[in-house]
Amino acid sequence: MNLITEEVKNFLGNSSMIRRMFEAGIELKKQYGAENVYDFSLGNPDLPPPPEVKTAMEEIAGKSGDMFAFGYMPNAGSVDCREALAKLLKKEQDLNCAKEDIIVTCGAAGGINAFFRAVLERGDEVICPSPYFVEYGFYAGNYGGTLKPVPTNEDFSLNIGNIEAAITPATRAIILNSPNNPTGKIYSKAELEAVAAVLKAARSKYGRMIYIIADEPYRFLNFDGVEIPSIAKIYDGTVVIGSFSKSLSLPGERVGYIAVSPQLENKAELLGALTLTNRILGFVNAPVVGQKLIESCWDCQVDLNIYRRRRDAMAKVLTDAGIEFIMPGGAFYFFPKSPTADERIFIDALLKERVLAVPGRGFGAPGYFRLAFCVSEKNITDSAESFKRAMAAI
Amino acid sequence: MNLITEEVKNFLGNSSMIRRMFEAGIELKKQYGAENVYDFSLGNPDLPPPPEVKTAMEEIAGKSGDMFAFGYMPNAGSVDCREALAKLLKKEQDLNCAKEDIIVTCGAAGGINAFFRAVLERGDEVICPSPYFVEYGFYAGNYGGTLKPVPTNEDFSLNIGNIEAAITPATRAIILNSPNNPTGKIYSKAELEAVAAVLKAARSKYGRMIYIIADEPYRFLNFDGVEIPSIAKIYDGTVVIGSFSKSLSLPGERVGYIAVSPQLENKAELLGALTLTNRILGFVNAPVVGQKLIESCWDCQVDLNIYRRRRDAMAKVLTDAGIEFIMPGGAFYFFPKSPTADERIFIDALLKERVLAVPGRGFGAPGYFRLAFCVSEKNITDSAESFKRAMAAI
Repeated sequence: MNLITEEVKNFLGNSSMIRRMFEAGIELKKQYGAENVYDFSLGNPDLPPPPEVKTAMEEIAGKSGDMFAFGYMPNAGSVDCREALAKLLKKEQDLNCAKEDIIVTCGAAGGINAFFRAVLERGDEVICPSPYFVEYGFYAGNYGGTLKPVPTNEDFSLNIGNIEAAITPATRAIILNSPNNPTGKIYSKAELEAVAAVLKAARSKYGRMIYIIADEPYRFLNFDGVEIPSIAKIYDGTVVIGSFSKSLSLPGERVGYIAVSPQLENKAELLGALTLTNRILGFVNAPVVGQKLIESCWDCQVDLNIYRRRRDAMAKVLTDAGIEFIMPGGAFYFFPKSPTADERIFIDALLKERVLAVPGRGFGAPGYFRLAFCVSEKNITDSAESFKRAMAAI
Repeated sequence: MNLITEEVKNFLGNSSMIRRMFEAGIELKKQYGAENVYDFSLGNPDLPPPPEVKTAMEEIAGKSGDMFAFGYMPNAGSVDCREALAKLLKKEQDLNCAKEDIIVTCGAAGGINAFFRAVLERGDEVICPSPYFVEYGFYAGNYGGTLKPVPTNEDFSLNIGNIEAAITPATRAIILNSPNNPTGKIYSKAELEAVAAVLKAARSKYGRMIYIIADEPYRFLNFDGVEIPSIAKIYDGTVVIGSFSKSLSLPGERVGYIAVSPQLENKAELLGALTLTNRILGFVNAPVVGQKLIESCWDCQVDLNIYRRRRDAMAKVLTDAGIEFIMPGGAFYFFPKSPTADERIFIDALLKERVLAVPGRGFGAPGYFRLAFCVSEKNITDSAESFKRAMAAI
């Protein structure tokens, strides 16, 4: 007797590759000790939260015996939290959002789900430059949508022609994740303006809103001080998705947001819909402790320099091993080219040297692999010989 | 240009009634002072969390500067939290769940959504005894399912004939919420065994699993010490949905669970699916602070006696006013009969006397109204004359 849907059954069958990697990692760490395993497979921020988070937590704890200390919040989030987020958007990208333009969500993932539930009709398509974060496909699929990956250029910049060619009457949105997971790419103003022009033309042609989802959980991880343009200022149909998982090392508490471009006509309708879908998907409200932490700590962040030094150390390790890569400008990933056409062969060679990486096909890009530098600089430096030996072995 | 789907647009149009009540309440409180308004419209637990919660919060806060203090948790929840939940299920309903049979979720609402995402094919039907919590309809609808309300008996007990008649080849589940929102009804073992027999026959006939969703966030609110049977022990296709929103007054932190009946054949497949859907719906993991609170406080609860005294006070107020009602055995609601056929007329009369109640049609039962006793006993007692005047006025 079928306990689950056919669709979910297929999903379960396909997730075995990542699970195998995860289990191999546990096994290796048990055998060789965690410090002798170079686990670049997980994007789980390993820096402790900034000290302000502890101070804020102690304050929250002090009031946690009060009536309504953990009471329901408005579905759109607390007024104080939404006001803090408006200040953050102003500071980070000079965006003039009112608190009413912002919904506090259960992380960025919860925000994207609430958005898709509000705007996707069955059969709608969501364009996504590839390589890409595979979860996007699940998020669109939850509501009958389909993700349509379109290849980027060799340097992972946006290929405007590919995007234009992918648009159909069913296109509802494009996801732009910058700085990008898995490539670390930051999109330039010129690229974004070109995308906006293409979308505006398509909107007129098809008489339908086409959104940009500006998924920006890595915005603060900008190593070279280049401009990360505000997409919401370039294109009125933009929703900004943000999160504190990386900037405050809070991924497990699940707090993020959706901000609607203040230029969007009739935005109140979309905001009303997002408040409703945030409720009916069962999030109800973003976790109250997370919201209170953001109220106090929205302007804090972990030390960017630590991640920058790790990036530079990883670049040296890869260069010394003769591995080809595009230097990531942001986020905490490298997405190098595999020296073997089938990257799983090289992944296996790395595994033999106690290095854990994720195959590029997990991001829609066979022939590449992803390394997350959420590990200590020493661990990165120590991995140098392992990379060299893996290169020699294949 | 359509910013949102037609379906969501319709939802927004229909939510105006509850919003009107909410806004009227704010206005009345501003005008007369909160203590002179009798707001029985909201199920927001007003008891402070038990003292153990504060102690646990202080401990969590003390460690909140550590690496991974707020790190990602496993999608199914922390091992410690799942073990605590297994102990709770054993203690509360003598159910022998292993920790592997339990998924920690973003509240009960998140749990039901994860379950529906895993099991509902488009067009599937979910039976629900009526009156019922309207959010269930949204939860099923999110994944292409339809809620099929079936009337209960006059005393709100289950009408087995109605349930049997509602079953079709498309039936996938029935939701049993006991103690019930909005009626306070607790279903007896005999009723539940009769439902189980009907479902087992239908399963054989249609060759398809039909689940019982035992939605039990009010289980500890049992005023008269009657048995609240363990549905998971009566019927193998049961998933228990639980929450700490009421027992620990934690509704805003969003932590609950799904437990699969240990008797279910091939349960690992369902549990794998729930772990996946909990991830891809964007919950990722139940909020980490909430999980840690449950690890410490699963065996604590707010003082039941306070709610019991309120129930008794409310029963006296209604009796003295000549309003007909079934005495609730659990939860924190009364669902009295309106003295007017259209209950909105009486709701308006109550509003004039500064009493806020919710129309029964919001629960699929016109001619009734709901009163939530999440307010002080004094506030309940003070409302007596208002109820009498409203009765005299209609």
